This record gives sequence, C-alpha cells and structure tokens, in this order.
Amino acid sequence: MTAGPVTPSVGILGGGQLGRMLALSAHSLGVRTACLDPDPAASCGQVTRQVVGGYDDLTAAQRLAELVDRVTFEFESVPAATAAALARERPVFPPVAALAITQDRFREKRLCESLGIPVAAYAVVDRPEDLAGAIERVGLPARLKARRLGYDGRGQARVLEPAEADAAWLAAGGGPALLEREIAFSRELSVLAVRDPAGAIACYPPVENRHEAGLLRLSLAPAPGLGAGLRAEAEALAARLLVALDHVGVLAVECFEVDGRLLVNELAPRVHNSGHWTIEASETSQFENHLRAGLGWPLGGTAMRGAAAMVNCIGQAVDPAAVLGLPGCHLHWYGKAIRPGRKLGHVTVVASSEPELWSRIRAVAALVAVPVEVLSPR
Amino acid sequence: MTAGPVTPSVGILGGGQLGRMLALSAHSLGVRTACLDPDPAASCGQVTRQVVGGYDDLTAAQRLAELVDRVTFEFESVPAATAAALARERPVFPPVAALAITQDRFREKRLCESLGIPVAAYAVVDRPEDLAGAIERVGLPARLKARRLGYDGRGQARVLEPAEADAAWLAAGGGPALLEREIAFSRELSVLAVRDPAGAIACYPPVENRHEAGLLRLSLAPAPGLGAGLRAEAEALAARLLVALDHVGVLAVECFEVDGRLLVNELAPRVHNSGHWTIEASETSQFENHLRAGLGWPLGGTAMRGAAAMVNCIGQAVDPAAVLGLPGCHLHWYGKAIRPGRKLGHVTVVASSEPELWSRIRAVAALVAVPVEVLSPR
Repeated sequence: MTAGPVTPSVGILGGGQLGRMLALSAHSLGVRTACLDPDPAASCGQVTRQVVGGYDDLTAAQRLAELVDRVTFEFESVPAATAAALARERPVFPPVAALAITQDRFREKRLCESLGIPVAAYAVVDRPEDLAGAIERVGLPARLKARRLGYDGRGQARVLEPAEADAAWLAAGGGPALLEREIAFSRELSVLAVRDPAGAIACYPPVENRHEAGLLRLSLAPAPGLGAGLRAEAEALAARLLVALDHVGVLAVECFEVDGRLLVNELAPRVHNSGHWTIEASETSQFENHLRAGLGWPLGGTAMRGAAAMVNCIGQAVDPAAVLGLPGCHLHWYGKAIRPGRKLGHVTVVASSEPELWSRIRAVAALVAVPVEVLSPR
Repeated sequence: MTAGPVTPSVGILGGGQLGRMLALSAHSLGVRTACLDPDPAASCGQVTRQVVGGYDDLTAAQRLAELVDRVTFEFESVPAATAAALARERPVFPPVAALAITQDRFREKRLCESLGIPVAAYAVVDRPEDLAGAIERVGLPARLKARRLGYDGRGQARVLEPAEADAAWLAAGGGPALLEREIAFSRELSVLAVRDPAGAIACYPPVENRHEAGLLRLSLAPAPGLGAGLRAEAEALAARLLVALDHVGVLAVECFEVDGRLLVNELAPRVHNSGHWTIEASETSQFENHLRAGLGWPLGGTAMRGAAAMVNCIGQAVDPAAVLGLPGCHLHWYGKAIRPGRKLGHVTVVASSEPELWSRIRAVAALVAVPVEVLSPR
C-alpha cells in the first residue's frame, strides 16, 4: 500500500473524438484531463475542461500545460513551435522528436528504409519543376502527397498521366510533396502498438481497413485470414519503429498487403481510428494503454476475444435505438455537429466468429449507410 | 436511417461515483449529462456539468431539470418534495412511486410479502415504547433499522438483549424504524435487473457480496456455486419486483441465502456497487443499461464471460501502477478526497476460471488492504 495521491493529469492537444475517448478512459482511472481546441463546441471539451484556443496560440498552450502535469496530442499536425513550447513546460508523450518525424512523409519513409522496412517507390517533389523527373523515377500511376499536414486523404492527388502533373501539384496543396508509386495492394492493414518509457511493448492484432472516399469506414479485427507470418512481420516492424522513435504511447502503422508482404504506408504517433474496437474487444483499450504508457504505469493486455469490427458513422445522424437493438453492437457518438463527410460516431461490433461478425456488420451497415463496395470490396 | 438528432440528455440527482460512472457511460453514447450535488468537488461533477445545491433545494433541482430532458438519481434518499418537483418538470426514471416504496423499509417489506417473496421476520417500531413488543414478536438477535435514509449500514443497531433496546433506538437514529430478526444466512447475494418502459427485462447473474464494517468490500460474479434453481429464483423475484414497481432502469435486490433459499433484505432502485464489475465483464454495463432503459432504447445483453470480481478501495490511496501491473485488473478511481471509511475506487478483476479469479483477487487484496476475513469469511 502506498499513500501517494492518485491524481495525475494529462493535457490533450486537440479536442476531437480521439481526445474525447482519451478523456473518458482517463476519467475511469481517476486521471484528470484538459484539452486545447479552437472550437468552443469541441467533442472532447464536452467531457472535460477545455482551453479554447488555436494550436499555434502559445499562450493557450501554456494555459493547457499549467492545468496538467503532462501533455499528449490527438493529431500529429501540431505546430513545431507549440510542441516545443509545451515540451519546455511539461513532459510530452509521444516525444516531440517522434512527432517531428511522423509529421513529415519524407522523414517517415527514410526512417522505414533505415530499418529495412519496405515502402512504396517515392521521390521528393519540392517544386513543381521536380515533378517530371519524379514521375520518370517513380513511374505511374502515382500519388502526389503533401509532405506535411495531410490526413484522411486530403492533400493528395492521383497522377495517371504526365500531363496531370500541374493539376496534381495544386490539388496536393502546392507545396513540398512526395510522389509515391500507387501500389496494387490487396488490402490495407494497420497495426497499433504501444511502448512505455521503460521500453515494454504491447501490440494489438493487425486489422484490415476499408475506406470510402478517403475516409476509414470499416475495420476488421483481427484482419481476416492474416497468416501467422504476416502478423508476426507486422508486429515486428511496429516494434522496430517504436524503438527507433523512442516512442512512448500508441503508434499506428498503416500498411499495404502486397503479394503476401507488407509495405508501410503511413505512421500516426497517437491513438487511431482503426483501434476504436479495442474499447470493447480488447483486455485494455488503445486509449487506456496510451495513458498508461504516458503515466509510466504498466501496459495492459492487448489480447482480444472473438472477432470485432468498427464501423464509422459519417456525415449523418443515426437512430441509436436501431443500432443498439442489434446484437453485439456498441454505439459511440461524439457530440459533433452533423456535416457531410464528418466522422460523427462509430459502432463496435463484437461476435464469437467471423461469420457471425459479418452478419452483424451487414445489419449495422444498413443503418449507417455503409456502401456495398465497402462490405464486398472486390 | 433516420435523421433525428442524437442528443438526448439525462440529469443525475447526486454526484458520487455512481453518478460519475453513469455520466461516463452516457458520454460514450453521446448522451449529455448534468448532475446536482451540494459538494463543489463532487466526483461526478469532475466529469460533467454540475449544479451545486442541496437535494432539498427546489431551485437547484429546477435548474438541473432545465439542463436536461429527463432525470434519474444515484441514491434513493431523494427528498419527496424534490422528487415531486423534478417529476413535474421532466420524466424521472425510475418512477417516483418506485422511489417512494424503496425509500421506506416497511413499504419495501410489504411489497415483497404481497408478491410472495420471503423476507426476515420484522416489526414496525414507530416509537421507543414499541420496541419491547417488537422484540417479543420478532425474537432476538435482531437489528433495528431506520425506516428511511439508511445506507451502507448506517442507521442500524444490533439488539442482542432486551436491555439494549434504548441504546439501539438512539443508534438507529431515534425515529421510525423496523426491527428485523437477524438471519443466520450463509451469504449475501445481490441480483441486478433492468426494465425498459415497454416492459422488457434483462437480468445480470446474481453475485455474492462480502462486507467489512458495513461496507461492501468484495463482490464475486457469478456467485460461486449458485445452483441453477436459486439463480432462477433470484432472477424471477427481481422480475416480479420490477413489474410490481413499474420500474424503469436498474433495480438492485439484496438477498440472504439461508438454507438453500433466498430472503430479500433490501432494494435499491438504481445502479449499485455490487454491479460495477459489469463495466468490464458484461456485454453491457449496468450503467449503460440503466440509461438505455431511461431513454427508451433497447436493453443490451447481460451475458458475462468467465468470472469476475469487484474489490472496493476504501479509505486510503492505492498505487495505480501496482494495481495495473496485476493481470486481469482494471482500476477505477473516483477523484474523491481521501477519508477513512470512504469508497474511493474499485478494482474489477476478470479471469477465465474461478481458481484464476481467486489468485488474482488475493493479489489485489494485498494492495488495497482487504482483510483476510473478507477473503475467507468462514
């Protein structure tokens, strides 16, 4: 028995649904939270104290830091000056250096390459006049992606023909970018892993992700039919990345499965949409494990029972009674104003077998307007 | 797909840990909450909007009602005038009539008797001069219990000898009371059941409860070695009570197991300490099901996996890292100031078998000062 007070506190940069779920998990553990977000109606601010301010407002960041004894973030596009200012005041997790790498697609790729982790062919495009040479080297079709600040498919443009280069440059934001060869992948997988300050690592089973218009729509956990070899490969590469980044907290690694091997597509140094199912289906959720890591508490088990899925609710209201009337369905709703293309909530579906899971997914899909292509992609 | 907004809201009378866990469950579902509690540092007020005011402050109750579209409570000692005032403004669940019955030990007993549900021998004691006759009729040893406002063993006194009657009268609060024959029970069980407005009922497996100094210290779910017959009896009597009370929400029924049958000891028309393990170990927690019932949403499944236990943390801080380092342990901490005899948090222990559960309980017990008598009661 120790007598130490159980009142640690964590500040969250960003007040979206990831912050909200972090805060709810923190509340269960008795961990106080506060968030910083420019929107006075922020999802997270509805369930915890909020500093209303822009992410580049150093005074607001300072106020957040003063409310808590350490800081994390729910998105990676944190302005460097803000991250540095926070780190001067309080311990920040994941470390700012890991944030800096994952904010930049080029540094991310180089990190993977340095660890022998395969990535798609790419070329740096700093100026529009670099594009022709990049197309030459990388080949087409390709995708031009802003080096920084892209998410949910924004800041990206497909390039099918050299003639499309100028339009792609503008569509990708008109700034430093990477041209990446488009991969004929069989599916997208993600693997979420978490590391504590002492170096302990825990890994969730890799999941299969299916998108609609650039937004994650469905995650299947574990990824159906994933062989033990690929699963081990996914977990091993996530662990290598965690160590190389000296990471503390959750890291999401998005991969393409191509001809029975994995190419890393993107890293997110935070809790991740493809891990929401862990709230119900894992021994410890990604949110709790992120907090445990940041607080220096032992990581919790990542074992899952049965099969699970996460269905995003995008752009329109759902009838909670209809969703909750379905077997094995758990509704999460974020308290956000309804706007087209906005992630408003999700449904976790749990089942004891894959066939049962699919029958339950299909029932939910009908209620939350998931298109048939997402359910049967090919 | 419906277009209705998903923003129902629930007011909670009382701002303790039960309210806090209700609010956290509500937040996950996108349900807004507010609570009313006189303590500005209330546990629940740390995670949701709070009206600071006394429970008999009708203006404060009015303000709570204005913040939400329906109201529930986390304790049953709600002043009648407050309950009536709230019910004039907003739907209240459970219904005020059910509250009125369960606030009064005598009406509770009579309800049970009217349903053919066994209770211990008892006699009403309105004035001190009634006690001698009551002792005559009920027999000794007995317990004198205040008719109203008792909880966690307060407002109770043992009576072993007729000469102790006067002291017991004072100890039980010096007001209308019930003298109840003390039962040589083999253990205390509780069964939590929930009913929705349409009459659907779901029941959690009965649990065994062990106390220390009048406070619940350990719940074992399901109650070890409970035969199918007694389990069915427990569920059936809970269902009869729910129907008779026209209840909406969770009802906790505390029973004594005596010679292979059940005597009902006490009802609580609310979520209950002996059901906290449902957060981790049940398909749907008691908190979510209470809300679903109150909102007219379908009840969630009450099936549990494996075995679970709830260990209360009472009166002193615990080391979260130590607790979280144990396998199968989930810490809940309520953000309350530390005071002797105060419920400050709990640990849910989950396991795949009873032997595994016991080895895990013993490990937690050592960290949170559970006395050996609670672990091995006889």
